[in-house]
Amino acid sequence: MRWPLARDRKHALNLANFDSTTRKKVVIVGAGFAGLSAVETLYRENFDILLIDRHNFATFQPLLYQVATAGLNPGDVSFPIRTLLRKYPQVRFRQGELSKLAKESNLIELEDGSKIGYDYLILAFGATSNYFGVKGAAEYSHAIYTLDDALEVRNRIFHQFELAAAHGITEGCLTFVVVGGGATGVEMAGASAELCDRALRTDYTSIPRSLVRVILIEQRDKILEAFDDPLSQYALEELKRRGVEVTLNSAVDEITPEKVHLSGDKDIPYGILIWAAGVGAPALTATLGLPQGRGGRILVEPDLRVTGYDNIFAVGDIAAANSKNQIVPQLAQPALQGGKHAALQIKNLVTNVPTSPFVYKDRGIMATIGRRAAVAQLKGGVDLTGWLAWMAWLILHLMTLLGARNKLSVLINWLWHYISWGKGPRVILGG
Amino acid sequence: MRWPLARDRKHALNLANFDSTTRKKVVIVGAGFAGLSAVETLYRENFDILLIDRHNFATFQPLLYQVATAGLNPGDVSFPIRTLLRKYPQVRFRQGELSKLAKESNLIELEDGSKIGYDYLILAFGATSNYFGVKGAAEYSHAIYTLDDALEVRNRIFHQFELAAAHGITEGCLTFVVVGGGATGVEMAGASAELCDRALRTDYTSIPRSLVRVILIEQRDKILEAFDDPLSQYALEELKRRGVEVTLNSAVDEITPEKVHLSGDKDIPYGILIWAAGVGAPALTATLGLPQGRGGRILVEPDLRVTGYDNIFAVGDIAAANSKNQIVPQLAQPALQGGKHAALQIKNLVTNVPTSPFVYKDRGIMATIGRRAAVAQLKGGVDLTGWLAWMAWLILHLMTLLGARNKLSVLINWLWHYISWGKGPRVILGG
Repeated sequence: MRWPLARDRKHALNLANFDSTTRKKVVIVGAGFAGLSAVETLYRENFDILLIDRHNFATFQPLLYQVATAGLNPGDVSFPIRTLLRKYPQVRFRQGELSKLAKESNLIELEDGSKIGYDYLILAFGATSNYFGVKGAAEYSHAIYTLDDALEVRNRIFHQFELAAAHGITEGCLTFVVVGGGATGVEMAGASAELCDRALRTDYTSIPRSLVRVILIEQRDKILEAFDDPLSQYALEELKRRGVEVTLNSAVDEITPEKVHLSGDKDIPYGILIWAAGVGAPALTATLGLPQGRGGRILVEPDLRVTGYDNIFAVGDIAAANSKNQIVPQLAQPALQGGKHAALQIKNLVTNVPTSPFVYKDRGIMATIGRRAAVAQLKGGVDLTGWLAWMAWLILHLMTLLGARNKLSVLINWLWHYISWGKGPRVILGG
Repeated sequence: MRWPLARDRKHALNLANFDSTTRKKVVIVGAGFAGLSAVETLYRENFDILLIDRHNFATFQPLLYQVATAGLNPGDVSFPIRTLLRKYPQVRFRQGELSKLAKESNLIELEDGSKIGYDYLILAFGATSNYFGVKGAAEYSHAIYTLDDALEVRNRIFHQFELAAAHGITEGCLTFVVVGGGATGVEMAGASAELCDRALRTDYTSIPRSLVRVILIEQRDKILEAFDDPLSQYALEELKRRGVEVTLNSAVDEITPEKVHLSGDKDIPYGILIWAAGVGAPALTATLGLPQGRGGRILVEPDLRVTGYDNIFAVGDIAAANSKNQIVPQLAQPALQGGKHAALQIKNLVTNVPTSPFVYKDRGIMATIGRRAAVAQLKGGVDLTGWLAWMAWLILHLMTLLGARNKLSVLINWLWHYISWGKGPRVILGG
């Protein structure tokens, strides 16, 4: 049996002729939720589209913390971009990193020196950690924005356990500190506590549970600030029930290789430190010569065009978009909606239809604390907690995961996890 | 619901008291087939056992080439050692790397300076590439002995494809050279050819197949030298049918960053080079002060004790063992049998029973060329090829893979692979 030719063979075009196309060229930088959503919206239209990303795969960021805590495999939350693009013959892909933007000549430059022309540009390269100037934070903490980040955290966690098993437990060596009580911080703290319980009960039985600590530090007086008070309260109790020490009203002053200094002269020796206190623009952003707002986010007009530019859009985490006079949160839903909106405005622009302002449709927010515990605050005032919210969270994430194979693999991992309580993929990869 | 305490909690002992045990101490270096087989044989006996490995996971080496060619995920072929050891309460684990051997005082030293005493020592740390002094081979070729190796190869393969897609195809940039026509080389060449076919037909449709080459270089006049002629011939034909160029009677003289120089002044420009020409002892071996034979393998007596030592065994790929006057091949089966034999001899030694010589029971050898094509030469003169051999190969490997979860995941990957023909986990990980 010979396999069939790919559907899109006839459309297959080398990047070399992207410049010579007669159709309008749309360049999309970043294959996250926003970038892929723009691709999805535009691919049927009369454009030549080039998608650029520094990885050859798309990452399902909302589940990275599960890779970090050994619940999922890296392959479960990543998907090859070229495989995604098989459906979209007009869309080319280029692995590369944006380095410069020549706005006057409508050119972008990649880090390998390639110059690529565009008629319309969509910037959707996402955000990274915002350290708010805290000394030592960038050097000594881990973030969880990329698959590599997540694997680094996982390796570090098991490295600390192996150190303790081999050399005994020094102060703080098994203290997991998570800075930031938003959804990411809560998910990471909850998953870490569960991982510690599992690991101690099975693989590191010589280590007493009392010497392992998971500490969540939040500056404000509540965790999950974006949620209604009863949900925040529920999350706090569920975290505590799992042994997480939640420290509210505490700001981090400085981080050294061994300790977190809190305001009020409190020191916490740590073994691993996760920074989940906020997202900011990557360093690249400041070099592009575009207007920036809070956290370095690119300022955009109501139609999502970058302020001062006719043919450059910014969407997703990197854009400081407003909707109904509120800044749009840096989450998957607004990124998906923003990418679509920008793509539709490009269609408007080429057909001389006036652009329309972006309106974020908030369908609700969710966060999971652990096994059978989550919170969901849905559109219309419906608040869910516990088992029901957890099932809703599971189903929603499975539905949006890319690719049947990934869905299947995640489902098996979760089921296995649930049944066996603790045979996650716990291997230390890399030198 | 609370999960039950691990069965072995009461036996959980910190490494710190390994030295003070009153039972005989067996230290096993290496958690491959040989080391794990020794553990399995000894764990019920009255010993305190310490297993040491530089990774915290065991690797199923026979399937690493499938990770390298994006057929399997890393997690499918690795298994956390501590999870394996849950069954064996007397067995401790220590992640670390052997650095010194003080034979006169029965101590080993790890790279972090820890000293560990033993009554019996089993060296089972496996083999690595043997470059036979070929200039440039160590620097520019990839081997596939560890999970990291396999991921490096995978990343390199897709990196080359991305380079070609972005910048056009330079000479050799999409030439995959595999040096060595043994089972590993044949499997790697066959899988690479299939990967290229898949990748070109789906994800890199702009690249013409004629510019992608897979070349297998073998010094002798046949591939799969260990197999009967008809099987070798079948394998050769199947490789050619898949577009692999097999170059027999060709020795590699030198490798530069861009080219393979063959004897007879032939140059092959390459994009990626896999070295599968032979296995040798890791550099560490020469520093241990033990007698070494061909390829640096440690010389052992018929009972598998290292020549000149009463309480040190060497088993698996690192040992130059003989059975019926033939050197034992460096494969999984002899490693499994050798590990068991060494363990049984330790039981004999403590009970003053004379040791017995190792006899390798050859149950046959197998190699797979690709989708529905394999060769199997079974004990008793049964030769299988094609679909039947491939099924036998699949089933055998699934049966010996560690852990139900890994089995399930591999099965799903293979089935998916088979049905969809090409949605393997093709992501480039790492900076």
